[in-house]
Amino acid sequence: MTIHDLDTPCLLVDRAAMERNLARMAEFCRARRAKLRPHFKSHKCTRIARLQLEAGNCCGITCALVSEAEVLVGAGVRDILIANQVLGRGKLQRLAQLNRQADVKCCVDSPVQVEALAAAARAAGVEIGVLVEINVGLNRAGVDTAEQAVQLARLVDRTPGLRFRGLQAYEGHACFVEDAPRRRQIVEEALAKVRAVRSACAAAGIAIPAVSAGGTGTYEETGSAQDVDELQVGSYALMDARYRRVRPEFDHALFLWSTVLAVQADRAVFDVGYKSCGAESGPPHISGWAEQPREFKLNEEHFCVSGVRGRFVVGQKVRLIPWHGCTTANLYREIHLVEGDNVIETWPVEAAGCRL
Amino acid sequence: MTIHDLDTPCLLVDRAAMERNLARMAEFCRARRAKLRPHFKSHKCTRIARLQLEAGNCCGITCALVSEAEVLVGAGVRDILIANQVLGRGKLQRLAQLNRQADVKCCVDSPVQVEALAAAARAAGVEIGVLVEINVGLNRAGVDTAEQAVQLARLVDRTPGLRFRGLQAYEGHACFVEDAPRRRQIVEEALAKVRAVRSACAAAGIAIPAVSAGGTGTYEETGSAQDVDELQVGSYALMDARYRRVRPEFDHALFLWSTVLAVQADRAVFDVGYKSCGAESGPPHISGWAEQPREFKLNEEHFCVSGVRGRFVVGQKVRLIPWHGCTTANLYREIHLVEGDNVIETWPVEAAGCRL
Repeated sequence: MTIHDLDTPCLLVDRAAMERNLARMAEFCRARRAKLRPHFKSHKCTRIARLQLEAGNCCGITCALVSEAEVLVGAGVRDILIANQVLGRGKLQRLAQLNRQADVKCCVDSPVQVEALAAAARAAGVEIGVLVEINVGLNRAGVDTAEQAVQLARLVDRTPGLRFRGLQAYEGHACFVEDAPRRRQIVEEALAKVRAVRSACAAAGIAIPAVSAGGTGTYEETGSAQDVDELQVGSYALMDARYRRVRPEFDHALFLWSTVLAVQADRAVFDVGYKSCGAESGPPHISGWAEQPREFKLNEEHFCVSGVRGRFVVGQKVRLIPWHGCTTANLYREIHLVEGDNVIETWPVEAAGCRL
Repeated sequence: MTIHDLDTPCLLVDRAAMERNLARMAEFCRARRAKLRPHFKSHKCTRIARLQLEAGNCCGITCALVSEAEVLVGAGVRDILIANQVLGRGKLQRLAQLNRQADVKCCVDSPVQVEALAAAARAAGVEIGVLVEINVGLNRAGVDTAEQAVQLARLVDRTPGLRFRGLQAYEGHACFVEDAPRRRQIVEEALAKVRAVRSACAAAGIAIPAVSAGGTGTYEETGSAQDVDELQVGSYALMDARYRRVRPEFDHALFLWSTVLAVQADRAVFDVGYKSCGAESGPPHISGWAEQPREFKLNEEHFCVSGVRGRFVVGQKVRLIPWHGCTTANLYREIHLVEGDNVIETWPVEAAGCRL
């Protein structure tokens, strides 16, 4: 079967490009003696998670939700970090249950979460690993000061049912900074905050088992630092138009296979839109085009590109590159693994649209 | 069960508000002698489609995809308009198969689509109803001139396997215009184009069985016109923050039930983001707040609101109102029907994330 037998829109993953990306990141980490903990949220497909583990130098997998951790445990993954807070009675119970068969850690940045986790752990008779999230500049969750981090680490350490497993220190605010010196500077500031927490913990007699951080945009800076033990990179595996501007050393492996539904005046209308493409912060790019369309309109099921008179015909199939791969994969139930135009296998995207 | 027993994020539908919305639109159409063809894309839930049909004055259901039509036919709906072009071998075969049990029409704006549809219809031994899409100013698909519309209608009419069923004339460019006189003017210009095509068809001896148009933003202007036979309104049923600015006479019936995951400095972090909320063109609103947050950040799994010191606590559950209901419903597998805080029933969102 070739991609021309597939109806659109659907997702294609170029096997060779993905394997190059996995090998490149594994090699980087091997050389820097950093561990990889690839982020599942970027593809939500356990077959790709397996390949990431096989590519080597991994200490486990990162994910964002309990539902993702359930899918991963179901696929045999045994060391998982939910790089997020977990709240809600049902979710806490499910997280505790997962810890009967696997090591599924999560993050906290307040005593309320510590108490809720501990209650769930004790009720299930398990121990849950906990990382203290520190705010290294992303300004989302995470405690702001080293003192707060020490207090929370101590609280976790002393709470039956929980075990302190380290620090979550994601520098997401640096990941899309295209100017490399500026990016390095922001990462340095983030790492300084990590070091401050390390020092304060050491002074308080609290050992930090691991510091988890890093994104595809910052893997090089963060992965080269002594202060970080494991990299939570996700997008490097499949890439997207947004990250390619920051990290051209990784190849596009994810494509939206689309059809030109209509051609009118100087416009072509592709059959992808907000319901089939992660375009919340930018439009898909057209594969093979050096210059990207400037005049476009996105609707729920349409991507309308103007200024392309004579370049497309009705029914033509076109490879697009999503602006954001993570929110794109979340919209599909399967991906087609391809070599050139040949479809090799079709894999489920098990955790897509899985909301709890 | 109450909503406090539900883990988040999840979708709540307020039954009373939805029923008021359905009754109001049905009553409007009854008074104006217009037919309703509610758009399934806005909720993708057949239980809601059933209620829309039961509310009266409906001639059928509108949808955007063959997969949505399949779900509707499976639920017993027998008159469906796919308000979109259909291309691709598999999809055309599936559309033809649906026409064995139901009347599932679609749109065309080029002879290529006519030929593809006719081949599929003849191969399956069925007749497929076809509407000619005209561009009334949305500038997406649709032919630009009355002459093109006549040519295409004539081609459909003469093509074995197809039957000309009317015009698709969606004025989506007017739907979000908040200034009512300006909106009325844009709709008038759109209707003038419909009339021009009507005249040209009459002159050519081609009868137009129906003109399908209208959105929630323009239902009043379009539904009052003699030129339009059926209204394809969708969002009126559940509403969202975006449409409420244009149509305050419909009530919010759709809520995102969310949890405050973290509170740091003056920020609260809710557990919804681009993967759980249709926020491609605006953030969720906080239910009950007169003024909406101005400082916010949306990520894949987080909605981070600043400037709210002291207003939220960790673990608090909050009703949010999605900016865009249609892209929100697409991200969920179920909705919880509520009366106040009581959960009455849980309904599947059968066509969510269903991409073909």
